[in-house]
This record gives sequence, C-alpha cells and structure tokens, in this order.
Amino acid sequence: MRGAVIHAPGDIRFETLPDPKIVDPTDAIIRTAVTCVCGSDLWAWRGLDATDEAHPMGHEYVGFVEEVGPEVTAVRPGQFVVGSFATSDNTCANCRNGWQSNCLNREFMSTCQADYVRIPNAQGTLVATDEVPGEEFWPGLLAVSDVMGTGWYAADAAEVRPGSTAVVVGDGAVGLCAVIAAKERGAERIIAMSRHESRQRLARAFGATDIVTERGDEGVARIKDLTDGIGADSVLECVGTAQSMSQALRSARPGGNVGFVGVPHEVAVDGQELFFSHVGLRGGPAPVRRYLPDLIDRVLSGRIDPGRVFDLTLPLDQVAEGYRAMDERRAIKALLKP
Amino acid sequence: MRGAVIHAPGDIRFETLPDPKIVDPTDAIIRTAVTCVCGSDLWAWRGLDATDEAHPMGHEYVGFVEEVGPEVTAVRPGQFVVGSFATSDNTCANCRNGWQSNCLNREFMSTCQADYVRIPNAQGTLVATDEVPGEEFWPGLLAVSDVMGTGWYAADAAEVRPGSTAVVVGDGAVGLCAVIAAKERGAERIIAMSRHESRQRLARAFGATDIVTERGDEGVARIKDLTDGIGADSVLECVGTAQSMSQALRSARPGGNVGFVGVPHEVAVDGQELFFSHVGLRGGPAPVRRYLPDLIDRVLSGRIDPGRVFDLTLPLDQVAEGYRAMDERRAIKALLKP
Repeated sequence: MRGAVIHAPGDIRFETLPDPKIVDPTDAIIRTAVTCVCGSDLWAWRGLDATDEAHPMGHEYVGFVEEVGPEVTAVRPGQFVVGSFATSDNTCANCRNGWQSNCLNREFMSTCQADYVRIPNAQGTLVATDEVPGEEFWPGLLAVSDVMGTGWYAADAAEVRPGSTAVVVGDGAVGLCAVIAAKERGAERIIAMSRHESRQRLARAFGATDIVTERGDEGVARIKDLTDGIGADSVLECVGTAQSMSQALRSARPGGNVGFVGVPHEVAVDGQELFFSHVGLRGGPAPVRRYLPDLIDRVLSGRIDPGRVFDLTLPLDQVAEGYRAMDERRAIKALLKP
Repeated sequence: MRGAVIHAPGDIRFETLPDPKIVDPTDAIIRTAVTCVCGSDLWAWRGLDATDEAHPMGHEYVGFVEEVGPEVTAVRPGQFVVGSFATSDNTCANCRNGWQSNCLNREFMSTCQADYVRIPNAQGTLVATDEVPGEEFWPGLLAVSDVMGTGWYAADAAEVRPGSTAVVVGDGAVGLCAVIAAKERGAERIIAMSRHESRQRLARAFGATDIVTERGDEGVARIKDLTDGIGADSVLECVGTAQSMSQALRSARPGGNVGFVGVPHEVAVDGQELFFSHVGLRGGPAPVRRYLPDLIDRVLSGRIDPGRVFDLTLPLDQVAEGYRAMDERRAIKALLKP
C-alpha cells in the first residue's frame, strides 16, 4: 500500500509501505475511505515537533473494515466505521468514567494518511454506521473522528448551556467545529475570535452571532463590551499558545468556564490569577469515543455539517500539497482521497 | 472600643480604637458576638505578607446588629447575623450568577477582631437568624462565615457527588470543614491527608473514612492505591502551596475535579500536564453568601458542628496568644470572646 511519511520538516513523501497486519487480537484493519491533514500535523511539518527518524503521519480516518482480530465482535468486514485519534478499550476504569481518550490501554493513531490502517483497540474504538453512508457524508464523519469531536469536547468542558454566551478562541477547523458545538448545545450568543474573512464567514454559517478581530487586551475589552462588562459564561480555547490561553482565561466571567483543547505549548497558568478569577478550567485530548454515536447521528441526519471545514480536496498521493496549503493558510483543512 | 492591630510580624496589640460609624447608606454596625483567628491571618503574623503600616486584623464574625444605614432593610438592630469575609451587594451581575465573593462592589473584611465592626454592603452580606441562637451555636455559625463556607465551596468546586471518592489536602480548619462538606454532599469515601493525630481524630469524627499521612510521590501513590489505581473523583485543596497543589492535581483521576481554596502562593500550573490529566480545576475565595442560608440551617438543626474546629477559646483581649498558639500549632483555630 501507499502512505505519507515525514522525513524532515517540510519533507512529506508518499511512499510504498508494507500492508498493515493484525498484530493483537483486538486490532482491525480498515481501508481508508477519506483521511485528512490536521493542524497539529503542522507542528512536525514546521519543525516545532522534532522528527528524529522518518515515520508515517495522520490520525484522522473513516473507512471500511477489511479484517478484524479474533477478539473484535463489535464491527465486521465491509462495514463503514468512524473512530477516534485516541484508541480505547472502552472497558477500563477511565473509559467507564467517560474518559476514553485517557484509556489505560490508549494508543494514539499516527499512520492514517495511507490506503490501509491498523486500528488498535478496535472493539472499543470503532463505531459502525447502520448502512454505508453516501459519499457526501464522508467529510462530516471524518471531521467527527477528530476536529468535530474536539470542538464538542471544548463546549462540554466549558459547560456551554442553553441560553449562555460562548466565546471561541481560534478559527482553525477545531475552532469552527467548536462554534457548531456551542450552537448545538444551545448557546444564545456565540462570539468567534477570528481575523480571516473566509473563516469568519464559515463561523457565521455555523452559528456565530458576533466576530471579534482584536486580540490581547483589546480582544478581552471587546469581549467584556459584549458581555455586560463581566465576560462570557464559556470560553472554548482552540489554539494552545500562551497568548490564546491568557485570552481565554481573561474572557471568561467570574465563575465561568474555559475548555481548552489546543495542545498547550509553553503554557503556565498562574495559580493566584486563576484563583481570584473563579474560572473553571478543563482541557485535554477529546474523549471522542464518548460522543461518537451522538455526533454520527447529527451528521447523518443532516443536522450539522462539519465537513464544510474541508475547503481543499486532494488525491491522497498529493498529501504534501495539503500540508503546504494549510501551512500557508491557503486552506483551513485538506481532505485526502485514496 | 477595643480591637486587634498588627504593628509588625509577631506584634499584635489589643488597643483602644475609634468606634466604627456608618459611612455609606448600605453599612451596618454590629456588636461582635464571637470572632476568631484565621490561618490566613498568620501570613502577616509570620511576615510572609508585608505589614507596611499598623492596621486592624480579622475577617470572621457573627454578632448583633447595632445600627444600620438608611438603605439597609434586610436586617434590623438587635438581630443576630452571620456574614462573610467578602461583602457583596447581592444584586450585581456576578452576585446574580452566584459569585458573591466576586461582587463588583466587594470589600474584604479586615477589622473583625474587635468589639464592634462596620459591615459594608450589609444589605447583601448579612443573614439574620430567626431568633438569637443559643451560645452553643455561635462557634458553628462563626465557622460558617469563613472556614465552613470555604470548605463547602471546595467540595462544590471539586464537584463532590453522592457515592464519590473525595481527597482533602490540608488538615487546618478549612480542610477539616471540607471533610464535613464532602460528607454532607454524599461522598462515600473521604480520604484526609494529615500528619497530626488530633486533627486526624477530628477528621474521622467529621466523616473521613481513610487517613493518608504520606506526602509528595508517596502520598499520590497511597491515594492511587485507595482508588483503583486511577485517583479520586474529587480533590479539595485547602493549603495553597506549590506542593499541595501538585499533590492535589496528581491525586485526581482523569476527568476528576480539583477545588482549590487555599490562596495560592507561588503556584504555577503547567498547561500541558493539566491538559493530559483531563482534570478540572476551579478555585477562589468562597462565595459564602450563596451558601449561608443552607449552612446556617445545617448548624442550627444540629446536622453539622463545624464549631468543633475551635480547640482554643480566649478572651478577645488575648488575641495575640491566639495567633501564637496557632502559629506554634498548639491550636487548630482560636475563638475570641469580647
């Protein structure tokens, strides 16, 4: 088969690789329907995450089950399945508590920009659709496996409630999906912080009621202006820098909540500032598996269309162009078709 | 009247002071029934908080209304009242959200170790009991004005739920009250971290099911041993040091919650560690006013007896000995009687 391999920053090649095999009895092999490039993949592309030796890339996938290990009974060959970037047995103490992305047997996916993929913990990770969905649903279901699940978790961790005000920090694919999530969870006012017109348009289409283009102190002041001077009930932090986290914490009202889903890079939260703010803070890799059945329903019923975050579609063999387009901000997110 | 004044670290004097007067129309003057020394008062006593000039001390009080300003209708002279260390108008946006300790007109109390006290924002701060309670209830009601209200908030912020497991870090008066709160909120297992036998006994009397004497890595390992290897649902941090916060965060299970009520001194939380832990974190000065009616009921009905944290009673003019006894850990908490 063929798949993407990173050799060095800026050097992604589409290569012939060994076909994946069942290794553990809980594995499945899927044939990729569609896959994509994630904003977090750009850390390696840009050299901000080290690439010590060449390795495959990609953690988002939907596909057709090809083969299952002897302990996998939840899905069967031929079915169309959606999974998560974090695999889970869905039986351990953390999974039972709803934190499948902290499964005691968790393995993060990392080989999905390829024709075929081995899925560890397939029994607890994969969810099959009742029928093979039409191709028009594939991008939405692919989004569910990571960015939509992550946006949903941001809204969950930030405790977005009906009638509340939510701020979304970050206008990447996750931030845009976070707007969808805030809307679906009943937020009455959704303020998207974005400086890019095309992304502002999509944010509005997804349910944003206000756009704030300022950042830092000015951005916080604008949020306060829009929220009776006290800040928002919920803030969804979808970037992961020190600046964006500070922006998020200062935009929440006393007693409000920040859900942070951008992997923090060099972020430290001052204890005393957090204390006197009364803001609640929760983050982490999204427990996508917990949300999968619900989110799959919302996509297949046409209620949400997170697949709209894909504004570039490429054949899988042009994966490197997907990275380039996203790195240069020519694309929000690149869909890859085998 | 007479009251406590700090002149320098270790130098608290009981002096003649001007009688407090109504300054704002929302003020009340109370005659102190009982007051006390707080663990946080020791920061100044020990010189860890600077004393640039002499000033009164004390922020805990119950008493009798002497006089009210023209805008105060909620309480009247002669009534027995309980308040909070943080005053609140109870009408602003933050108060309406339940965060009275972040009231837009908040003033922190600081003159309560005295015969008479001026209470700003009296209308929104003071709660009168139906009748003047017997003296045996005064210590419990005094505890409600700060340490019991704070312990309650720790349990609330840590989302203690019926049947859950709670860890309490810190065996001072707040930590001990946090044990009461965890018990009242239905925690099935309550693990108190304490190295002092007399405090362990009181923790057990208040509902602790387990005592852990170890700290640091060993303490975390003991908590994991007691919680199926994953950590506790809720951790109540009642100290405020970098060590205690680290202990608290590492003792919570993935997806669990830490409520932190010890004012953080030189505490920074690593963003990436918090992220991968999935732990929710909320702290702050307790919104005692939100809890007052309920906690007053629990004390007067005899359901809880947080007054037991006072293991030393002194006449108010011996206030300095109260500081000394607490500083030297001869007393958990000193009650002062005018």
